[in-house]
Amino acid sequence: MQQAIAVLDSGVGGLTVVRELMRQLPQEKVIYFGDTARSPYGPRPAEEVRIFTRQIVDYLFQFDPKMIVIACNTATAVAIDDIRTHVPIPVLGVISPGARAAIKSTKSGIVGVIGTEGTIRSMAYEQALRTISPGIQVYSEACPLLAPFVEKGLFDAEEANAVVEQSLRPLVGKPIDCLILGCTHYPFLTDSISRVMGTEVTLISSADETAQEISTILSHRGMLAASGVMPIHQFFCSGDPELFKQIAQSWLRELISIRPVVWQVPNII
Amino acid sequence: MQQAIAVLDSGVGGLTVVRELMRQLPQEKVIYFGDTARSPYGPRPAEEVRIFTRQIVDYLFQFDPKMIVIACNTATAVAIDDIRTHVPIPVLGVISPGARAAIKSTKSGIVGVIGTEGTIRSMAYEQALRTISPGIQVYSEACPLLAPFVEKGLFDAEEANAVVEQSLRPLVGKPIDCLILGCTHYPFLTDSISRVMGTEVTLISSADETAQEISTILSHRGMLAASGVMPIHQFFCSGDPELFKQIAQSWLRELISIRPVVWQVPNII
Repeated sequence: MQQAIAVLDSGVGGLTVVRELMRQLPQEKVIYFGDTARSPYGPRPAEEVRIFTRQIVDYLFQFDPKMIVIACNTATAVAIDDIRTHVPIPVLGVISPGARAAIKSTKSGIVGVIGTEGTIRSMAYEQALRTISPGIQVYSEACPLLAPFVEKGLFDAEEANAVVEQSLRPLVGKPIDCLILGCTHYPFLTDSISRVMGTEVTLISSADETAQEISTILSHRGMLAASGVMPIHQFFCSGDPELFKQIAQSWLRELISIRPVVWQVPNII
Repeated sequence: MQQAIAVLDSGVGGLTVVRELMRQLPQEKVIYFGDTARSPYGPRPAEEVRIFTRQIVDYLFQFDPKMIVIACNTATAVAIDDIRTHVPIPVLGVISPGARAAIKSTKSGIVGVIGTEGTIRSMAYEQALRTISPGIQVYSEACPLLAPFVEKGLFDAEEANAVVEQSLRPLVGKPIDCLILGCTHYPFLTDSISRVMGTEVTLISSADETAQEISTILSHRGMLAASGVMPIHQFFCSGDPELFKQIAQSWLRELISIRPVVWQVPNII
């Protein structure tokens, strides 16, 4: 199937899913939309995030994708059910794959979750974990500073360490043996997070796990791209295209072209 | 959905999938069939393995399962397409999950595979790996001594080390960074395999990965068991029930009851 996988995020965070997609499924074409003009989604009301997500999905549908990936934990938490009833193709979020990987990884049955205020408030990870494995214990913590920090494109190690250390302080010393990076922006900060949490805590990237789950679903539905065709990916963003391009090229380690999109609807409802 | 997941293997190897299933999906009921009277499947002709697999699936269908898991690499390699056209429920094998996990794990793009003669001869792993990621390089090695060793229920460490060392010798020193344990019997020998291959080679258990993939498929199809019901598993085997029980209880770390099944058809066609 030569149609693309459409990936969306509030900004650049979903690029962590895209990098893994490009690595794990090198034959799949990706169309990416980063809603950088309206990032972050974390502090926004759920209804607003639902409307924004629906708008991006409608935009992406002009390219006739074979699958929608909501590569944003906040949007997955509040909008995935709505999008699933809205479109006739498979819709994947980033929460269930992370939850499943944590269940596989944990030995103690006690896991940590970090995410935006919206994700943590929604209790979506607790629900996903306990639906599968009711005995799991969860410590969760909202880290509102982290996603905006990544969106700025600043990766000064010392500054990153300081903001990560402050954000994770409530989880340090808790008896968790794995920590779900419940925001697709967080893999940009893996080194700092790992330093703060220590080597005994396994970090679960919802981005890596989502790429593997995309592979599983496409494979079981007979929808994998045919062999031998090297795809050309497409990137769109609603905010500053130069900043997006700079972050994307540095993260994906390849040159990309980016098309800016100006929303015809008000920025904030 | 309170129906069971039906798991089958040539013998006790599929119990490595069951242990992970019980851990990762504690609410799911498992019905297991080990064809210990006709184990090993590895050296048998493909057509014979197809007939045996079909016979077990037909036997398991009296229990109205919601999913069939072919927890045997040899049977997956030669019979999964046949079983998929034969039954109206999802059928999972153990080869694709292991291949996907190896693609996720490898940094160098060079992976190793060990399995029975039947699995290695079928080139099923090469095909699964290259369908998803054409650039992957694969070193594969048939290890005909290992599955029968496990079926005997002997786990003397020194004897295990010797047979594993001999079997893996052709792979030692090859530039692989992960090794797919392409037979569900092999996780019984993880310690010895890890000792021989060294810590730089990540071992991929097709059993662990299959349990996670079962979770993914059940979840995406809305077929997970309802919360709060603790399942009672059922075990069947065609050979010596006492030996099966002894191996199963030691591996699963819980008491089980086992029902012997006597095939009404000849043992070998």
